[in-house]
Amino acid sequence: MLGYKEARFTLVNNLVGTLNIIHAVKEVNPDCQIIKLGTMGEYGTPNIDIPEGWIEIEYKGRKDKFLFPRQAGSLYHTTKIQDTDLLWFYVRTWGLRVTDLMQGPVYGIETDESALDERLMPNFHYDEIFGTVLNRFVVQAVAGYPLTVYGKGKQKRGFINIKDTMQCIYLSIMNPAKRGELRIFNQFTETFSILELAERVKRVGEKLGYKVEIQHIPNPRVESEDHYYNPEHTGLLELGLKPHYLTDEVLEKFFRVVEKYKHRINKDAIFRGVKWR
Amino acid sequence: MLGYKEARFTLVNNLVGTLNIIHAVKEVNPDCQIIKLGTMGEYGTPNIDIPEGWIEIEYKGRKDKFLFPRQAGSLYHTTKIQDTDLLWFYVRTWGLRVTDLMQGPVYGIETDESALDERLMPNFHYDEIFGTVLNRFVVQAVAGYPLTVYGKGKQKRGFINIKDTMQCIYLSIMNPAKRGELRIFNQFTETFSILELAERVKRVGEKLGYKVEIQHIPNPRVESEDHYYNPEHTGLLELGLKPHYLTDEVLEKFFRVVEKYKHRINKDAIFRGVKWR
Repeated sequence: MLGYKEARFTLVNNLVGTLNIIHAVKEVNPDCQIIKLGTMGEYGTPNIDIPEGWIEIEYKGRKDKFLFPRQAGSLYHTTKIQDTDLLWFYVRTWGLRVTDLMQGPVYGIETDESALDERLMPNFHYDEIFGTVLNRFVVQAVAGYPLTVYGKGKQKRGFINIKDTMQCIYLSIMNPAKRGELRIFNQFTETFSILELAERVKRVGEKLGYKVEIQHIPNPRVESEDHYYNPEHTGLLELGLKPHYLTDEVLEKFFRVVEKYKHRINKDAIFRGVKWR
Repeated sequence: MLGYKEARFTLVNNLVGTLNIIHAVKEVNPDCQIIKLGTMGEYGTPNIDIPEGWIEIEYKGRKDKFLFPRQAGSLYHTTKIQDTDLLWFYVRTWGLRVTDLMQGPVYGIETDESALDERLMPNFHYDEIFGTVLNRFVVQAVAGYPLTVYGKGKQKRGFINIKDTMQCIYLSIMNPAKRGELRIFNQFTETFSILELAERVKRVGEKLGYKVEIQHIPNPRVESEDHYYNPEHTGLLELGLKPHYLTDEVLEKFFRVVEKYKHRINKDAIFRGVKWR
């Protein structure tokens, strides 16, 4: 954790932001669909399969359907659980329509649109707070910095190419949730362990002439480093998602873009030793 | 809902308040136990039994233990779910010790201590926002106001005498949770439907010479008016709770105290037509 002030800001910013959207939609047009970018991080890494948001529970011979119980690995991800609680309350009470996209870590730097003009390129973070792991690894490889694997690196997550993120949001807009529905999709296309990703980046990087070292560092987070992980993710495929999977070719192209902006990499931002404990 | 401003205040006040306590305990003495007054309202009225906070879920042949999935009937109660999410995150991350008391509606006006001196009497609310239902019914009966039952009145809840509330907190202090434990108790002693309570108040009130009318009014809340309800509540009994059940005698004594302060009842506060929709 950075500290109390940052925790308070994250909590108030995320929850009051969501409350504002909810009340604005209710006031202006309750028929509007709210699409919230949630995160796979809400689920944590339970020892059972992770359905898309909802689960039927049988207990002592009776059944009911519930939001899948969530437990996250950071305060930020905890506020995303709380956002879901908030949306679900107002969906039931005011009949709002909400799609909650439980997104896995995004990677990539280009969409079809951004490729048309450099000025359309998306934000690209590679620092340890906002940078997602694959983006960081590619930058680290290009900058001659060891790939920083937290602990054993057997942590598994569901990943998604930034191009598919855009598709998923588009599909959610074109096929809205019903009034009074909180529709949840698990938004990722493949699962990998962190170590698998590091090894792929090393392989492709070395093919391109980089010297890439993998470094296991003490885990700055409280998390399982070796666990079961099997989240379901059929909803968006059923809506028509055409996934861009992580091939060596995709990774090579990714390297080429980062390479082009190598002179703008700020090596000091790569690792500052922030602890999430 | 009263409105946006009140919603925002409730959200920020409850969550930042909890965050402050958590950070203060971490900073001053992480060995302190935090006892949070939660509410049975976090669970809502699911169609399965409600265990004390935790549930083991089996899904596709695998098992894990989770916080029981919650869905509340008001924004206030939703912020109590969010408090639990927040505490559970910091229990896992910092190894805090927390007892979360899921309290049902409290009734009564006297504890053994307050009976010693009038100046020790607790707050007693009978308005429609802060007043709990049995307190309201007794005041309504004494003030010659009809008992306001929301809808059918078959809503069931778990109730507790204010004397037992004090016992439960005392027992939780004397038997603290372990480091890294979020211990949850369902804090009530008996379940009743709202209509059962109204009928009891009518019976006892009429015995005491009051003319008591039961009035069904359109439900100002979004809630099931006829549902399954079977929450478990053995944890506090195992710690030594000696319940004060709601007998006609207890109710009669309750009437006598309210009677004594009859001249201070503000009839305008009893019903203002607040909607929770």
